[in-house]
Amino acid sequence: MLDAALRDGTAHRQCVFELFGRRLSGGRRFGVAAGQGRLLSLLREFRFGDDELRFLRDERVVSAETLEYLAGYRFRGSIEGYREGELYFPGSPLLTVTGTFADAVILETLALSVMNFDSAVATAAARMSIAAGDRPLAEMGSRRAHEQGAIAAARAAYITGFDATSNLEAGRAWGVPTMGTAAHAWTLLHDTEEDAFRAQLESLGPDTTLLVDTYDIAEGVRRAVALGGKRLGGVRIDSGDLPLVAADVREQLDALGNTDTKITVTSDLDEYAIAALAASPVDSYGVGTSLVTGSGYPTAGLVYKLVARQSASGEWIPVAKKALDKGSTGGAKQAFRILQNGVAVEEHVRLASNEPAPEGSRSLVVPLIAEGEIDAAHEGPEGVRAARAHHMTVRRELPVRALALSKSDPAIPTSLV
Amino acid sequence: MLDAALRDGTAHRQCVFELFGRRLSGGRRFGVAAGQGRLLSLLREFRFGDDELRFLRDERVVSAETLEYLAGYRFRGSIEGYREGELYFPGSPLLTVTGTFADAVILETLALSVMNFDSAVATAAARMSIAAGDRPLAEMGSRRAHEQGAIAAARAAYITGFDATSNLEAGRAWGVPTMGTAAHAWTLLHDTEEDAFRAQLESLGPDTTLLVDTYDIAEGVRRAVALGGKRLGGVRIDSGDLPLVAADVREQLDALGNTDTKITVTSDLDEYAIAALAASPVDSYGVGTSLVTGSGYPTAGLVYKLVARQSASGEWIPVAKKALDKGSTGGAKQAFRILQNGVAVEEHVRLASNEPAPEGSRSLVVPLIAEGEIDAAHEGPEGVRAARAHHMTVRRELPVRALALSKSDPAIPTSLV
Repeated sequence: MLDAALRDGTAHRQCVFELFGRRLSGGRRFGVAAGQGRLLSLLREFRFGDDELRFLRDERVVSAETLEYLAGYRFRGSIEGYREGELYFPGSPLLTVTGTFADAVILETLALSVMNFDSAVATAAARMSIAAGDRPLAEMGSRRAHEQGAIAAARAAYITGFDATSNLEAGRAWGVPTMGTAAHAWTLLHDTEEDAFRAQLESLGPDTTLLVDTYDIAEGVRRAVALGGKRLGGVRIDSGDLPLVAADVREQLDALGNTDTKITVTSDLDEYAIAALAASPVDSYGVGTSLVTGSGYPTAGLVYKLVARQSASGEWIPVAKKALDKGSTGGAKQAFRILQNGVAVEEHVRLASNEPAPEGSRSLVVPLIAEGEIDAAHEGPEGVRAARAHHMTVRRELPVRALALSKSDPAIPTSLV
Repeated sequence: MLDAALRDGTAHRQCVFELFGRRLSGGRRFGVAAGQGRLLSLLREFRFGDDELRFLRDERVVSAETLEYLAGYRFRGSIEGYREGELYFPGSPLLTVTGTFADAVILETLALSVMNFDSAVATAAARMSIAAGDRPLAEMGSRRAHEQGAIAAARAAYITGFDATSNLEAGRAWGVPTMGTAAHAWTLLHDTEEDAFRAQLESLGPDTTLLVDTYDIAEGVRRAVALGGKRLGGVRIDSGDLPLVAADVREQLDALGNTDTKITVTSDLDEYAIAALAASPVDSYGVGTSLVTGSGYPTAGLVYKLVARQSASGEWIPVAKKALDKGSTGGAKQAFRILQNGVAVEEHVRLASNEPAPEGSRSLVVPLIAEGEIDAAHEGPEGVRAARAHHMTVRRELPVRALALSKSDPAIPTSLV
C-alpha cells in the first residue's frame, strides 16, 4: 500500500486514523484501555534499520523510492487518545492518529498489537480485581504467555489492580512490585519436605509462605507450623477443591494456634473462581493462565480505521467502510464521559468541534504525541503508576451493574453524534 | 528458590526437569510441539547483564552470593527433546533438561513461555491447514497478538502448513514467505474506488488482488474486472456471509469471462469456517485473530517439572508431586511413536534405559544442547524449514480419525511404562 501510495502521490495526503472497538469482547460490561505507555516508548525507537532495509530490498518487497522513504522514517504526526487505564465502551475513540497517509498507516500493526494485547489482559485483570475485593492478587502467569507478552501482561495487570508479579523483568522495566514463591520442585529437590521447609525458613525467615501440597496437605501444614512456629507467614495451596481445602487448612492452622498465618491459593484461578472463594478463608490469590490469556478473550478486538482524509484540494473528507457488520463512522472525534452524581451514565462521542464539553462530563482524550513530540509523562514506571492511579479513580465512577461478572450489554450506552 | 538452594547447597545437585503436557487443550486429537528453534537462539543470549543485576541487588531480591552466581550464568547442562514440528500427546516428554538444580530451574519460565505460545499457535495452524486441504493459507493476525508474539505466531503457522505471512519481520528473521494486501484504508484514501484500483494495478500489475467490499461487492467486482481485465489476479472479500458471497462473486467473475481470477476470503476465519467453505468457490484463505490466539486455546498448557535428582550421595532418585489432578511421573524418559503400516498407533514413553527401541517405532527424542553446546541446525531459517518438512512428514502418519475437528480423545494412546 505504501509503495503504491508513494507512486500515485496519495501517500502525502493528510489522514486521520482511529483505533477503537466495535464491541466489547465476551459480553463484558466495560473494557480497559492499556498499552499507551508501551506504545509511546516503542514509537520512540520505531525506525527502519539496515537489516530491515536490506531485507526489503533483497526480497523486492518495495521500490527504491519506498526504501528511501523508510530509511528516513520517524513518526512526525500527532496522536491523542484515552489515558492508559481509562475505561472504554463500543465506539470509544481510544487513539486518534493524524498525519500523512504514509506516516500513519505504517503504525497500524504496532498500535493494534500493543493495544489489543495489553487491553485484553488489563480488562481481565480489572474483573479479577473487582472479584477479589480487598484481598491481594499476585500475577504468576508468565509461563503461559509469549516471553515478551508475559512482561506486558504483568504490567497491564498491575495497572488494573493486581498488587505484585512474579515477573522480575516487569519489576525492572516498569516498576511493578515483585514477589517470589516456592515451587513443588523446591520440595522435591530435597530429601524430605522437612528439609525443604527448614531451608526455606532459614533463607527467608519465618514470614515466608510454604507450599504445603506436594505430598499430603494436612501433614504439610502440621510440618510447616512445627518448623515455622507461630510467626509463620503463610501457606500456599496449589491443587484440590479450593473452597473445601482452604476451610480445612484454616481450621487446622487455627487449632494449632496459628491464627495469623495466611492462606494463599493458586490453582487455575479466574474471576469466577475468585468470586466463588469470596466466603472462604483465603487471604490472597495467585493468578496465572487465565490472566495472561485475557480470561477467554486473548485479544481486545480493536481495529484501526481511516476515518478522514484530505482531498487533492486540501478539503477534509470523512470516510467509512459500508459493510453491515464491520462498518465505521467517518470523521475525527472527541469523547466525553457524562456523569450524574459521580456515576457514569453515557459515553458521549461526537465529531470534533469547538463546542464546549457537555455539562457534567469528563473529557476522555489527552495529547500523547504532538507533531512527533512524545509526552514522556506516559512512559516508564512513572506512566505505569499514573495509569494505575487513573484506573482506580475512574473505576469508582462505574455504575454497580458494571461490576457483575456475567455476560451482558455494555454498562453505559455510547452516543455517537 | 535459587537463593535458598545456593545457601543450603542443593543448588548443585544434578537434576532432570521435564517439559510436557498433562492433556491436550480443547479436546484436540494431537498437539504440535513448536518453539524449540526459538528457545535455542534465546538460550544463546540468556545472560544476566548489568541492568538486571543492579535491579536484583537494589531491590534486595537475592543475596550477594546469588548475584555472583547469576553474573556468571550460562546454561551448561543438556537438553534433548522432540524435534520442532513433531506431534505430541499427553505425557510426551517434549524437553528433558539435565543440569544442576540452579542451572536448570532458571530456564523454567523461558522454556514454558516459548513452547506454550508457539505450540498453541502451531497446533491451531495445523488444524486449519488440514481443513484447507490444497488451498493456500496466509497468516494475517499480527495485529491481534502482542507485537513480538506476532512474529513467533507467523513462524509457528508456517511450520505447520501456512504458506505465507503478512508479518515482514517473520520473513526477515525466520525466512517465512511474505505477502501483502490492500486494506480498506487504501480504497478510502482515494477519491473513488476506481482511483484506488487503478493506482494499485499500475503499481503492482494485473496479477494483484483487489479488495472489493469497501462499498458494494458486485459493483466492486465489475469495476475490478473493467480495470484489471482478463489477467486480473484476484479479488478479496472481507465481510458478509462468505459462502453466499463467494458463490455470487464466482458467478459474476465467470460471467465476465474472468474464470482465472481467484477469490480470497478473510473475515474472522478459523478451522471450522474454513471447513465450512470447502465446497465454496474459494481459492485461498487469510486467517488472523483465531490463528494467533490458538483458536480458543491461546496456551498449550505445558508444564516443567522436576522428575529426578541426585541425592547428597550422588544416587539418582525419581521424584513426583502427588496431587490427583496435577501429578507427574518421576524419572528421565525416552519416547517412541509406534507405527503399524506407516500409521501411528501408540505414543510409547518409558523410563530411560539401554533397551533397544520397540519394534516398528520411530524414536522421538533428539539432542538439542549437549553440555552447553547448542546444535545450530535447529536455529534460524534453516531450522524453520527443517521443522516444516518434519511436520509435513509426520502428519502423514496420523490415523484418519486424528484429522477430524470435533472434540475428542487424543488420536493415539500414550503408554507410560
